[in-house]
Amino acid sequence: MKETVLLTDQYELTMAAAYFRHDMFSDATFSLFIRKYPQDRAYFVSAGLEDVVAYLESFRFDDEDMDHLESMGLFDRDFLDYLAGLRFSGSVYGIPEGRVFFRDEPILEVTAPIIGAQLAETLIINLVNLQVSVATKAARCVHAARGRGLVDFSLRRTQGMDAGVKVARSSYLAGFKGTSNVLAGKLYGIPVSGTMAHSFVTSFEEETDAFRAFAETFPENTVLLIDTYDTVTGARKAVEVAGEMAEKGEKLRGVRLDSGDMAQLSKEVRKIFRDAGFDDVSIFASGGFDEFKIDRLLEEGGDIDAFGVGTKMGTSADAPYTDMAYKLVQYDGRPVLKLSSGKKTLVGEKQVFRFYQKDKIHRDLIALRDERLEGEPLLKQVMKGGKRLQDPESLETIRQRFEKEFEKLDGKHKSLEGPEEVAVDLAPGLRELQKKVVHEVKEKELGES
Amino acid sequence: MKETVLLTDQYELTMAAAYFRHDMFSDATFSLFIRKYPQDRAYFVSAGLEDVVAYLESFRFDDEDMDHLESMGLFDRDFLDYLAGLRFSGSVYGIPEGRVFFRDEPILEVTAPIIGAQLAETLIINLVNLQVSVATKAARCVHAARGRGLVDFSLRRTQGMDAGVKVARSSYLAGFKGTSNVLAGKLYGIPVSGTMAHSFVTSFEEETDAFRAFAETFPENTVLLIDTYDTVTGARKAVEVAGEMAEKGEKLRGVRLDSGDMAQLSKEVRKIFRDAGFDDVSIFASGGFDEFKIDRLLEEGGDIDAFGVGTKMGTSADAPYTDMAYKLVQYDGRPVLKLSSGKKTLVGEKQVFRFYQKDKIHRDLIALRDERLEGEPLLKQVMKGGKRLQDPESLETIRQRFEKEFEKLDGKHKSLEGPEEVAVDLAPGLRELQKKVVHEVKEKELGES
Repeated sequence: MKETVLLTDQYELTMAAAYFRHDMFSDATFSLFIRKYPQDRAYFVSAGLEDVVAYLESFRFDDEDMDHLESMGLFDRDFLDYLAGLRFSGSVYGIPEGRVFFRDEPILEVTAPIIGAQLAETLIINLVNLQVSVATKAARCVHAARGRGLVDFSLRRTQGMDAGVKVARSSYLAGFKGTSNVLAGKLYGIPVSGTMAHSFVTSFEEETDAFRAFAETFPENTVLLIDTYDTVTGARKAVEVAGEMAEKGEKLRGVRLDSGDMAQLSKEVRKIFRDAGFDDVSIFASGGFDEFKIDRLLEEGGDIDAFGVGTKMGTSADAPYTDMAYKLVQYDGRPVLKLSSGKKTLVGEKQVFRFYQKDKIHRDLIALRDERLEGEPLLKQVMKGGKRLQDPESLETIRQRFEKEFEKLDGKHKSLEGPEEVAVDLAPGLRELQKKVVHEVKEKELGES
Repeated sequence: MKETVLLTDQYELTMAAAYFRHDMFSDATFSLFIRKYPQDRAYFVSAGLEDVVAYLESFRFDDEDMDHLESMGLFDRDFLDYLAGLRFSGSVYGIPEGRVFFRDEPILEVTAPIIGAQLAETLIINLVNLQVSVATKAARCVHAARGRGLVDFSLRRTQGMDAGVKVARSSYLAGFKGTSNVLAGKLYGIPVSGTMAHSFVTSFEEETDAFRAFAETFPENTVLLIDTYDTVTGARKAVEVAGEMAEKGEKLRGVRLDSGDMAQLSKEVRKIFRDAGFDDVSIFASGGFDEFKIDRLLEEGGDIDAFGVGTKMGTSADAPYTDMAYKLVQYDGRPVLKLSSGKKTLVGEKQVFRFYQKDKIHRDLIALRDERLEGEPLLKQVMKGGKRLQDPESLETIRQRFEKEFEKLDGKHKSLEGPEEVAVDLAPGLRELQKKVVHEVKEKELGES
């Protein structure tokens, strides 16, 4: 789905109209961050940055958009004319995709004349929130699978079509081996796989006929779904077909289990194939998997070579959103914040510095962008004057970055339940400015001193 | 987002190739249904049917799609040529959007030559699952709000852009009054609203300046967000601005609370406005609302006129997917099913009949399509020979249908927690055929008798 400037909340436009009317064209900095961890999370995976850059680069209201805005009857001619000519002209800093980040840390900072920076709010959150949620969920599945391959099967139950392709990309970035999603394969070059569903089996008079028909059509890529009627009986029929294939010099690649007690069934199925001399037939499992079910099955000794992971990963079902916000932190050189109960923001243009101990991530410091600290700065400038500073990264580059990064995160932060948080503190410069601004705002707005 | 035929799982294509190779071109019937209720649900709201019809009507692989399929290296030339000419030529029955339905009931049945019917599986589920989930969640919010208006604020945190517009539509059809989503307003004619965010307030030197600036720009549509620094202080400043507006013959429309203890704060804010003689200033509330939080706040006596409902509704956060499946139930005149553990399907082409008692929904019977029963048939034919049988319904028509329908659902089925299920049974004809087919399949596939 193409990003469009009308995919925004009306209040972005009414605020823009009020800024325009009051001659407010100075630079504003907005900071994108997540206030708290969802259940059982102690890290996030950066994803979605490239989509933000592409959106901002092509930001413009076309004739059809302008006709619609005019038809809303809310806006003056001079403001509409201004919008028609508006382009994003600012700068963007972001934490590269595939890196790990923590709560309160700015994943993105946008600085631009306030109208442009404000109008982009809704879609920036929409683009990043989903991809961070899913990349993080996928990373948890990869961690649980202990080296076994995972394939994204979620397309049918992602929340919409656009989510379908973004989930394929976000999960691949976080270490999945591929997807069932044909369009995602085309768009991103992700390896695509998939063989048969239950409907294929039931459309034949007999299960064995269905197995044979598939093996004849795709002798080099046959994975038989064996639980349509009964998994163990299905495995025996699959052995029969594997034997027929072997006679023709072909090889059954694998079987898939999609229901039942898979710890037990996978062992029985393995034995059936081993006893028949088919040691290298892979066993795939699918059906309601997430990191918890993968972990449990492997704990129980399930003999599974690879998993198809669908709905729960693709909707990040236990944490289907993050508490992501895009907040004004500076306007016209003046650091600003809100004090709303439980929703305080960190003022000013910022940077995040990372510190390591024995190759593991030890702590992060959130600092003012111009503070000079020893650690590794995470935010990189990706746009300047409305233009991107580098070509889009390949998905493979991002995937490799995440693989290395994830090794640097200690196991205690990756636990599926009750993980330990990485320490994130404020650097001295930010701490001081924050304190000062909070004091000033309280004095000015609340009459406190 | 335009539906595209490549937005499918690879296995739909490999199965299609195997059907093609084995000359399987007979009619197949697939049934779309939900096996179980998510937590706290005892009904679903039908939504998404129009998108399915539009998708099937325009189903075709264009040149670019064909180039991609060819590049996958999986398919023979003759199958690819067949796909290039493939159109959806079947019939579709569906439960009209805005009606209430229950578990196990077919919401949609597709009958077409098996390749076309199979290839549509992934996207049909994707289109309907999200919209049913969200329409149902939105109906729960409407029920909890006891007549107070609700507006969809979810766009920033929906799972993607496509979800953003579908959530606006699904929540409007379930009784929301409008949305913040400008594009959804354009696409569906839904009323759009929205005024200001915290960034607007913080961009001004003082909160009162921000309020004044907005009131000057939109004197007829001013809703002030008053919790940026402190809600009660904000309310007093809003009274000041309301007074200035009154002097000019203008009227402050309302204020919005977005944080804190809203039961308490709404009463304080109401008092502040009443004491100042502004009895008709509306109080809007937003911030993490779903049906549970709305209900709790009203139970606690929160004095709120309308709610902005965002993330939790827009992602159906406590039930972000349904267990929706699209299963082959008949092929070439032969009723079929799978027996997979816990996932049995109902065979044959079906109809659902509804029975009422004192104008309330009493029970449903799932029947074979050709069974003649007294009740009201829910499934209507919407496509025949690949063509739609009627023009798309207006969203207002669907919305009114739901409003009437929801009144017919007794309160005990609408409870937010632990609702009672409506009885759904099998009609005699279906019951008998189901029993017969289960017996035959067990005999044939498992060697049982």
